[in-house]
Amino acid sequence: MRFGVLGTGTVGRTLGSRLVQLGHEVCMGSRHAGGAAASEWVAQAGEAASEGTFADAAAFGEVVINATAGAHSLAALHAAGAENLRGKVLVDVANPLAHDSGFPPKLAVANDDSLAEQIQRAFPEARVVKTLNTVTADIMVEPSLLPGSHNVFVCGEEAGAKTTVVEMLGSFGWPPEAVIDLGGIEAARGPEMYVALWLRLINPLGTWHFNVAVVRPPS
Amino acid sequence: MRFGVLGTGTVGRTLGSRLVQLGHEVCMGSRHAGGAAASEWVAQAGEAASEGTFADAAAFGEVVINATAGAHSLAALHAAGAENLRGKVLVDVANPLAHDSGFPPKLAVANDDSLAEQIQRAFPEARVVKTLNTVTADIMVEPSLLPGSHNVFVCGEEAGAKTTVVEMLGSFGWPPEAVIDLGGIEAARGPEMYVALWLRLINPLGTWHFNVAVVRPPS
Repeated sequence: MRFGVLGTGTVGRTLGSRLVQLGHEVCMGSRHAGGAAASEWVAQAGEAASEGTFADAAAFGEVVINATAGAHSLAALHAAGAENLRGKVLVDVANPLAHDSGFPPKLAVANDDSLAEQIQRAFPEARVVKTLNTVTADIMVEPSLLPGSHNVFVCGEEAGAKTTVVEMLGSFGWPPEAVIDLGGIEAARGPEMYVALWLRLINPLGTWHFNVAVVRPPS
Repeated sequence: MRFGVLGTGTVGRTLGSRLVQLGHEVCMGSRHAGGAAASEWVAQAGEAASEGTFADAAAFGEVVINATAGAHSLAALHAAGAENLRGKVLVDVANPLAHDSGFPPKLAVANDDSLAEQIQRAFPEARVVKTLNTVTADIMVEPSLLPGSHNVFVCGEEAGAKTTVVEMLGSFGWPPEAVIDLGGIEAARGPEMYVALWLRLINPLGTWHFNVAVVRPPS
């Protein structure tokens, strides 16, 4: 399968490398083609890796992943172009962390809206699915770094798009029963706002490598 | 020990009954003394239970618990009176759910402030500790309703006040290692915003009886 990964940060590089490892072709997109981060990634990720502009990557992908910093996501997706996102599954893993608000950062949007909703509104013909924003990059692609079962969430308007994403998550190591479908794209407010807790757990836990398991009564 | 419990809803009644069961004296406070909910609670909770105004309950308690609806918490605490809260541990278990915003409700305050911070600012001589707002009332007082270990959070400015709250939580059945100290009262933004996710988990899980366990790498 062909994936376009938008963003050359840790999240984009980690997702891109894992997808190549799983046998997919991946084009990493950034603001300008030929940048250092993307070129280094291509050199080490292997034959199936390429890079280009946001538009190149979005055009290349059958599935497009938004792994840009949340503050830049809408601009990156506009650069990618609505025509290159039309009808495609757009996996939004970004967090709308506000710039210049210290640590822990505030969210640029929360409570009565979310980044995922902003993206879906701006690109109504893309099939946006929010997922993976609740764990650090290493855990996204290798959940077995943590013991036992723990959970990840999906939100989106369309069941078919969520099925595609659940399959991708399965290939990363998230069993289907670990993936909790929260409903439509509005529900992305939940996992996005959870990040306010996630950010405050880093210091007490002394690691970014953690996640939550949803615990229910014995059935 | 003497507890003042502000609020006659499910959370206040559940906490009050558990504290009486544990051998404490509890005065439940509401806007007007002698209301139906408080009187019924006193009749069934037993000898060590009493009720009165918010001010009566706050004056009675060595520890005061804010179990009012978040939208009314500041008004209830002002009715309780700063003089009755001075120097006391004030356990804030409320969520600032906005009225009239449908389901799931929005938060009345989030992201750059929190209910717990508002309370601490309004009552600077109270020793505010945020906790238990991340689980439904039954789980607050009986965490063993859920299997295995799962977590609850504390936030507050003062270590001594948090120690008192950790002891209270221990008496409810939360072992010390289940209680994660997130830091000062500002950190209450984390568990308060997590409620946006919690609210969206109710439908997929089909129950209010759930919680999260924080999963870390094997040490």
